[in-house]
Amino acid sequence: MDLPKLKLTLGYDGTEFHGFQRQSGLRTVQGELEQWLSRAAGNPVVVTGASRTDAGVHARSQVVHFAANEIPIPAKNLMAYARGTLPQDLVLRKVELKRQEFHARFGTRFKTYRYMLDIGSVPDVFLRRYAFHVPHELHLGLMQQAAGALVGRHDFTSFCTARATQENNIREIYQIDIRRSNQDLVIIDVTGNGFLYNMVRILVGTLVAVGKKSISADKMAEILLAKDRREAGPTAPPHGLTLWHIEYEKEWFLTEQQISSYY
Amino acid sequence: MDLPKLKLTLGYDGTEFHGFQRQSGLRTVQGELEQWLSRAAGNPVVVTGASRTDAGVHARSQVVHFAANEIPIPAKNLMAYARGTLPQDLVLRKVELKRQEFHARFGTRFKTYRYMLDIGSVPDVFLRRYAFHVPHELHLGLMQQAAGALVGRHDFTSFCTARATQENNIREIYQIDIRRSNQDLVIIDVTGNGFLYNMVRILVGTLVAVGKKSISADKMAEILLAKDRREAGPTAPPHGLTLWHIEYEKEWFLTEQQISSYY
Repeated sequence: MDLPKLKLTLGYDGTEFHGFQRQSGLRTVQGELEQWLSRAAGNPVVVTGASRTDAGVHARSQVVHFAANEIPIPAKNLMAYARGTLPQDLVLRKVELKRQEFHARFGTRFKTYRYMLDIGSVPDVFLRRYAFHVPHELHLGLMQQAAGALVGRHDFTSFCTARATQENNIREIYQIDIRRSNQDLVIIDVTGNGFLYNMVRILVGTLVAVGKKSISADKMAEILLAKDRREAGPTAPPHGLTLWHIEYEKEWFLTEQQISSYY
Repeated sequence: MDLPKLKLTLGYDGTEFHGFQRQSGLRTVQGELEQWLSRAAGNPVVVTGASRTDAGVHARSQVVHFAANEIPIPAKNLMAYARGTLPQDLVLRKVELKRQEFHARFGTRFKTYRYMLDIGSVPDVFLRRYAFHVPHELHLGLMQQAAGALVGRHDFTSFCTARATQENNIREIYQIDIRRSNQDLVIIDVTGNGFLYNMVRILVGTLVAVGKKSISADKMAEILLAKDRREAGPTAPPHGLTLWHIEYEKEWFLTEQQISSYY
């Protein structure tokens, strides 16, 4: 019989984590989660995450998977077990059983990242961990115009921090939504099929420069074509960024019978 | 000539403070603020605050005053000086010059406190410092009915943690507004002319008990009349509470001439 997967949906406040990915000696989301799961299971559990968010980046919906037989606790009891045993800045939002074909990283259809800008003259003390303070009036119309040039399938080399050799910097952005949510809060939602390293943060840094009129909105198409990181604006800081939503290609439902044997 | 007062409006995240009031050896809002002002002034500055919020309680708008001549920095420069020199969890939102008669505590007309309840089955990780997690469906209609009995001028002994002998526990609540702000967030705004020790938190704890139907909404009037703390519900935790707004009796404006001499 197929071995079902457990799909966990997590939220976290990235402030006190050195990013998602496990790193020896550092507090990371994957590290804390695996430690917790291993304690619950009584043996080491390794998870696969959908997105390796950077240090300081938050998640409303991060997804991880692992084989359901690695842990003896029935899926339905895992949520209750999480209450009070997980660290306060990491919450388990959902536990689902999926078919063996489910894969947190490779099965995604699109992801949405949210970036929040606090444009008040004085920072909102309750948003200081979750929004980038930009005490300027931003021209949202120009930012929306500039964002329009980014939507679609493009080579995003200009919006990527060079790491090792990247074979392929072509990604597709489906939508960029920029709006003022209240007097001093600007929300930028970026939805796409995949993102290069630092791509959303560079994209937002460039849009902010457009909003301040230090880069012209018309220049966005040129910046893309240049395929040169130096043409784009600065990298916006990590704390304004939140992995908001991950949509999967399919649901990979199990049969009732398979579910009951793991519940 | 009259000696003008400086009126400062502050916001703070109460999580890392042992309350507002100065206490030797503990990190408090007044302590941090006075230290900062004293450094700016080059001599000790003591402030008078409007409200002695408890450990863990936040403020969107706390108000303090001190004599304008205690600090050599012109009022208009204080905001700029605050940027980067105040701790991150304490923000200076406004600096105003007022007539000598202004008093942060005794000149108030009313205060509004906001209490936030996160009623999601799983806590919202971004609200965990600012909202009390109550994973229950609450009956808002019953809570509103119960709140109605509290509005007005009453002896609030039942809603007060006994400290030393209190001569007078009569206060007036002008309004209690309870609403669902989004799917999982319930906001309770309480406006009154003054509040006893822990009064808002006991009031909210009792309203939550009504929302869960463990106390009947009809019982509220009885609880008030009993003048006995044991009749009311539990004290809600401090982290859900925020000092939201303080309204003063007058503006205590200065003349143009007085202002210019201090700017």
